[in-house]
Amino acid sequence: MPAVDICLSPTLLTHYNLTGKAVVVIDILRATTTMVTGIAHGIDHFVAVATLDECSAYKAKGYLTAAERDGLKADGFDLGNSPLALVDGSLAGQKIAITTTNGTMALTASQQAQEILVAGFVNVTAAALYLKQIGLDTVLVCSGWKGHISAEDTLFAGVLAQKLQANGFLATSDACHLGLTYAAAANGSIKAFMANCSHITRLSGLGIGEDINFCLEADKYDLIVKQVDGKLVKG
Amino acid sequence: MPAVDICLSPTLLTHYNLTGKAVVVIDILRATTTMVTGIAHGIDHFVAVATLDECSAYKAKGYLTAAERDGLKADGFDLGNSPLALVDGSLAGQKIAITTTNGTMALTASQQAQEILVAGFVNVTAAALYLKQIGLDTVLVCSGWKGHISAEDTLFAGVLAQKLQANGFLATSDACHLGLTYAAAANGSIKAFMANCSHITRLSGLGIGEDINFCLEADKYDLIVKQVDGKLVKG
Repeated sequence: MPAVDICLSPTLLTHYNLTGKAVVVIDILRATTTMVTGIAHGIDHFVAVATLDECSAYKAKGYLTAAERDGLKADGFDLGNSPLALVDGSLAGQKIAITTTNGTMALTASQQAQEILVAGFVNVTAAALYLKQIGLDTVLVCSGWKGHISAEDTLFAGVLAQKLQANGFLATSDACHLGLTYAAAANGSIKAFMANCSHITRLSGLGIGEDINFCLEADKYDLIVKQVDGKLVKG
Repeated sequence: MPAVDICLSPTLLTHYNLTGKAVVVIDILRATTTMVTGIAHGIDHFVAVATLDECSAYKAKGYLTAAERDGLKADGFDLGNSPLALVDGSLAGQKIAITTTNGTMALTASQQAQEILVAGFVNVTAAALYLKQIGLDTVLVCSGWKGHISAEDTLFAGVLAQKLQANGFLATSDACHLGLTYAAAANGSIKAFMANCSHITRLSGLGIGEDINFCLEADKYDLIVKQVDGKLVKG
């Protein structure tokens, strides 16, 4: 029977062995939500890079560039980190190089895994079904905020762990108990439960309330996004 | 108004600035519970050291030595890590050098703080009152298990954060939200809530069920234990 575990911050990945496992990288606000949304609306693929310079360099390779730092779009790039910028389908067929404060770091730190997904509330059920199908031990890696725990990533990990547990995955670690308890406390009312959390408050102050609402909506898309040859593509 | 924050693993301390703050080091099973219990029953003071060799060296200085690794008493030391070994008062007046798998590491990593307490459920109300009196911003540092989250340390941090919040402390970080939610879910039934958690299961397998029951009982002692000149003493 496969097991699910939760890693609450990329800083804690040093204590996990990802070899032979599936990893789900989680940055609900907003990197992994944005990637899933983009792929759902026709983006060919994303590449995630660590630095602004690496991101800019992709322009010469025909990529659109997307860059966020501290919640804001970085100057000189085509896009920031908003999923809503991708929903009208006008960028279908394009490829995007993206760098963000937290999500791309978590992805970089997870490369040891056998199978790498990015996911969000927007495709949580599809992600759970895919993980059940491949049947690997799975680690849910929360991106957090600059190494700190983030409420929305922890909540998503708990909700996904609930779905995996319901599909027969073992969920016995204390980190799982914490995530499952957190998800049970939210009891499906994701937006209300998250309303007072610090990252939500921080980002709301930046005027992206519509983005936040979008990122906390479940199952808008019935697809998964996984890494193949270094690119994040429709799985 | 002072603030309380929670650090869920010593590995995450790199993201916290402890300067000028109070820290509560938490290793419910069992290091910090054992220290509080020992002091309550007449132990003069504890010194916490990182290695078995350092611990042994204290024998020549007139100390009893206490050493635990992976939940078991280490060979060649006077004591392990059991609070129950200290409750009959026969060691009153003695001083103890102690090294444990997790708790002493968390203590070592917290030395930047202005005020350092160790605490457990056994003195949670006394610890909360003392922290209110000194009025410093406070970080609750969970020792965890080899860098991983531990349920009982997280629960204690949540319960202590509840008491501090009720006494006017700000508790706004996402880690606090997680800890407070976890404590609310336990709703005072600490032993039942912890019954299936991994560290509890691991230690129960070592035949220390009585220790565990003891460590999860609230407010047995009305005193605090703090670090003064490198020694853990009655505060």
